[in-house]
Amino acid sequence: MEIGIYGLGRMGANMVRRLHQSGEHRVLAGNRSGGKVDEIRKEGIEGVYSMEEMVQALEKPRAIWVMVPAGEATSDALSAFADLMDEGDILIDGGNSYFRDSVHHAKVLSEKGIRFLDAGTSGGIWGLRVGYCLMVGGDASAFEHVEPALRTLAPEEGYAYLGEAGAGHFTKMVHNGIEYGMMQAYAEGFEILEKSRYDYDLRTVSNLWNQGSVVRSWLLELAHEAFVKDAKLDSIRGYVEDSGEGRWTVIEAIEEDVPANTIAGSLFARFASRQEDSFAMKVIAALRGGFGGHAIKEAATEDEK
Amino acid sequence: MEIGIYGLGRMGANMVRRLHQSGEHRVLAGNRSGGKVDEIRKEGIEGVYSMEEMVQALEKPRAIWVMVPAGEATSDALSAFADLMDEGDILIDGGNSYFRDSVHHAKVLSEKGIRFLDAGTSGGIWGLRVGYCLMVGGDASAFEHVEPALRTLAPEEGYAYLGEAGAGHFTKMVHNGIEYGMMQAYAEGFEILEKSRYDYDLRTVSNLWNQGSVVRSWLLELAHEAFVKDAKLDSIRGYVEDSGEGRWTVIEAIEEDVPANTIAGSLFARFASRQEDSFAMKVIAALRGGFGGHAIKEAATEDEK
Amino acid sequence: MEIGIYGLGRMGANMVRRLHQSGEHRVLAGNRSGGKVDEIRKEGIEGVYSMEEMVQALEKPRAIWVMVPAGEATSDALSAFADLMDEGDILIDGGNSYFRDSVHHAKVLSEKGIRFLDAGTSGGIWGLRVGYCLMVGGDASAFEHVEPALRTLAPEEGYAYLGEAGAGHFTKMVHNGIEYGMMQAYAEGFEILEKSRYDYDLRTVSNLWNQGSVVRSWLLELAHEAFVKDAKLDSIRGYVEDSGEGRWTVIEAIEEDVPANTIAGSLFARFASRQEDSFAMKVIAALRGGFGGHAIKEAATEDEK
Amino acid sequence: MEIGIYGLGRMGANMVRRLHQSGEHRVLAGNRSGGKVDEIRKEGIEGVYSMEEMVQALEKPRAIWVMVPAGEATSDALSAFADLMDEGDILIDGGNSYFRDSVHHAKVLSEKGIRFLDAGTSGGIWGLRVGYCLMVGGDASAFEHVEPALRTLAPEEGYAYLGEAGAGHFTKMVHNGIEYGMMQAYAEGFEILEKSRYDYDLRTVSNLWNQGSVVRSWLLELAHEAFVKDAKLDSIRGYVEDSGEGRWTVIEAIEEDVPANTIAGSLFARFASRQEDSFAMKVIAALRGGFGGHAIKEAATEDEK
Repeated sequence: MEIGIYGLGRMGANMVRRLHQSGEHRVLAGNRSGGKVDEIRKEGIEGVYSMEEMVQALEKPRAIWVMVPAGEATSDALSAFADLMDEGDILIDGGNSYFRDSVHHAKVLSEKGIRFLDAGTSGGIWGLRVGYCLMVGGDASAFEHVEPALRTLAPEEGYAYLGEAGAGHFTKMVHNGIEYGMMQAYAEGFEILEKSRYDYDLRTVSNLWNQGSVVRSWLLELAHEAFVKDAKLDSIRGYVEDSGEGRWTVIEAIEEDVPANTIAGSLFARFASRQEDSFAMKVIAALRGGFGGHAIKEAATEDEK
Repeated sequence: MEIGIYGLGRMGANMVRRLHQSGEHRVLAGNRSGGKVDEIRKEGIEGVYSMEEMVQALEKPRAIWVMVPAGEATSDALSAFADLMDEGDILIDGGNSYFRDSVHHAKVLSEKGIRFLDAGTSGGIWGLRVGYCLMVGGDASAFEHVEPALRTLAPEEGYAYLGEAGAGHFTKMVHNGIEYGMMQAYAEGFEILEKSRYDYDLRTVSNLWNQGSVVRSWLLELAHEAFVKDAKLDSIRGYVEDSGEGRWTVIEAIEEDVPANTIAGSLFARFASRQEDSFAMKVIAALRGGFGGHAIKEAATEDEK
Repeated sequence: MEIGIYGLGRMGANMVRRLHQSGEHRVLAGNRSGGKVDEIRKEGIEGVYSMEEMVQALEKPRAIWVMVPAGEATSDALSAFADLMDEGDILIDGGNSYFRDSVHHAKVLSEKGIRFLDAGTSGGIWGLRVGYCLMVGGDASAFEHVEPALRTLAPEEGYAYLGEAGAGHFTKMVHNGIEYGMMQAYAEGFEILEKSRYDYDLRTVSNLWNQGSVVRSWLLELAHEAFVKDAKLDSIRGYVEDSGEGRWTVIEAIEEDVPANTIAGSLFARFASRQEDSFAMKVIAALRGGFGGHAIKEAATEDEK
Repeated sequence: MEIGIYGLGRMGANMVRRLHQSGEHRVLAGNRSGGKVDEIRKEGIEGVYSMEEMVQALEKPRAIWVMVPAGEATSDALSAFADLMDEGDILIDGGNSYFRDSVHHAKVLSEKGIRFLDAGTSGGIWGLRVGYCLMVGGDASAFEHVEPALRTLAPEEGYAYLGEAGAGHFTKMVHNGIEYGMMQAYAEGFEILEKSRYDYDLRTVSNLWNQGSVVRSWLLELAHEAFVKDAKLDSIRGYVEDSGEGRWTVIEAIEEDVPANTIAGSLFARFASRQEDSFAMKVIAALRGGFGGHAIKEAATEDEK
């Protein structure tokens, strides 16, 4: 089939490559800045330098996959494409958008007759080789139209239509919430091993657990690779960003009355990892000084920082 | 090699079978009650009806794998075997013993010249086919001696020597703590999906996530199988036992000053799942009635229960 | 001063009484339905039967305190009053509104020249006697105008201006979040006492802790009263509602990157207290059955429920 | 009555003073090192320089209150006194001992005919003025004998007999667990205020909340004093020690199957406050680098620390 991919970041560029390498599709690659288009063209892939060019180059009904940062960039791109496209054309948001935004985008686009799909995409930098896990919501007829491309992008059985607009990004959101919790569980466990009375080699343990144990998983294979690179992770700082889905998962748990201590705890651990000092713990240190005369550590001076 | 397996429960009996089926070892199967020995003998496996018989039937240095419930049963069996065995013989505890008990057992047995191994064993009812993941601590020379049997019991790379006495059961304990956290993360995620505005088919989602997504794992494959059997788990009550390792993991986290909100939260969720009513929440209901006049639900009468 | 109080629920009616009993103010009491107005008039208090009547009866600049349920009822009442009032008049929202709503109300009302105050109000059914703790945000000149009434409503030092619109309700929100966490801490502690090897009389312990201990507090005094009424809380079901502020506090913590395990945990405990069965725990029971053959409890049949 | 107090640390010395100032008792003050005895004698209090001297100076049945650090120091002091004392004499452990130790001490001492009391003591540096909250377990006849001293030490209704040996220290343990949870709830709340869009003066808020609000408490009064001293706690580092009771409370919750997310979360927050870097978060940073190519912060070099 014919499909345009707009946004040649790490994920978008690799999706273009996977579609192109299959030899089954005509794939057009576009990007806001031209440098990345130049690069992809060197690989023999058809590149376009503007939204207009992409729209004009595709046959109707057009299918364009937008792969740009969630939030304003995605909203703007969808809106700009919609202005150039015709009734019956298809826009797919493959980014990490908030499902509430996708519900809104579907509504606005449907008013213009554009069919919308929200495609939660997992697989990271491994997707090019393994395939991307695609969680798709939105217009069912659009899903059928782009299914050949989804089949190429995903591993076997690795894509599915999950329901109306937002259902794809909602699933991806929860997927990432689970991912937070799983990683935190492994992380706490490895810290307990590391600080124990035993002198564990975590390269050995992480590999061992991947052979027939109940906790074997792809994340654990990655953990093994990380320990092989740096057995005690000495080179890494315990500072962890979060990209939104974990927060949204906890907020959704709250909306739905779901007790979610594990996912919430893993989110809060990331917040704590990024704090230089904790105001909450200052309060407690002050209180302990107040009732018990317990010693209080002085804050670091600017020089000591 | 020659090895005795004492304790023909689900795990022990299957380990006997896996060793026997390899054709590489002479395996003796023993059990406290004779019925299970009768059964295993019907499969052409050598069965013995007492500890004495097992000890007499093995050549020195004898290797006996004890696979009975953790706690008193294990302590008693180790002690009884030790009384019958000779210096240089080997006892292996393959159960879910507390690592502190294993440290103690190693010490007591070494005074009698018996070499001890603690072998944390994961794999459950799948171990017969897939192999058991074996986390071994204790006497290094004993490990070398029984390595042929470990190689048969485990999948490839699925066994390892991890350190002095207790190191095996400690690793298994942390393994199970991680298992609690991972399961809780999946569970919270599936509850958020189930209660959402979308009408998800969790058979589809769980299968999809196993294809190339970051959260793919063996546990998720089991989740998929569970949803295939009962799409909304209507037949299952949300009541979850725990067998000790989760508690020990949290206690060990406390001993080591490791923040472990995720593993602790998953343990507490099991406690809550088993409570008919919560005294803590009664207190809060009473307090809310006290300061705000908020309505209090009456406790169920005996008839209503 | 002159002030109208609109909304004669438990809180509003008592605030009317406290203002009236001081003998320092002219207070007008209004309510959507007339029955409550009839009642309050029997106490010799000036009652009005409509918004129009209240507005007409007050001298400019009018001050009207709206004390109706948060959400639509509050928005509607503010909007209806604004349509009847004049530039420079003052509207106070004393309910448990979301601070984001108060920011919005302030903006909309200011466009009509109405001065807005958001007054978080704590004290519950005890406020009539003890006074209400009033956390006020919004228009500073309006605060000065109504200060005489605030002084009467609050205990000494029990009211304050905290900043621009929303600052009052934000403070009340966090106040309630803290309240959740404190109550949960007491509740967990009492459950640990209740289930211990000792046969504690919680009437004794709760009273004792209020005499000079570090955990003494008004909530603990209420706990003591609750235990005096029902020593083991046998008559109370551990079922706890929540009215929004706890959720908002956790959501705000997430927005601000504040690790808030304690407040979040206390919110999730309330969710769990209201679940008949837990889907999450069904998932875990199913998984344990899947890997370990652990027994699964069957869901209660309709008959057993 | 006559009583000896052994251990003139901050708590012990003030208890001596409070007993002495009442004019109702003969109090003997003893301490391992003589300097503190010299000091207390300057206040006109009877001081002794050895255990032997204390035992000899008291009339039978003797009552000696041991106020030394929990653990070995307490065990040693109890044992040494017991060797010098006679049947029917009374030993009181007023320290923060683990209740399991107190159960053990009671048993050992009873074999010698010594009556034992475990007296959990709260009140910190404020006890001299306000009185100490005394939670007492152990021998009931001994409790009756020392009641006059307890009455002097405590505020009105501030002491009670709670059950057999260990019941006092168990209650103090849970008291401190609750204290952890309450402080954490306040601390999280103040951090949410501090990081909010509003420019709160926490001196104002903490004082305001103490006037009629639901969260008013003695701890909140201390918080107010702390903010008065240092409005933004700039001089304090968010580093919080823990002295054992919080850990024991969580361990006891685990033993009793009590879900205790709030108290556990407040304990883990203290652990995190003391970590320079988190191994768990290193693992997560490594995993995110592994699957998503997310940037990893390098660990601080020695120079940067």
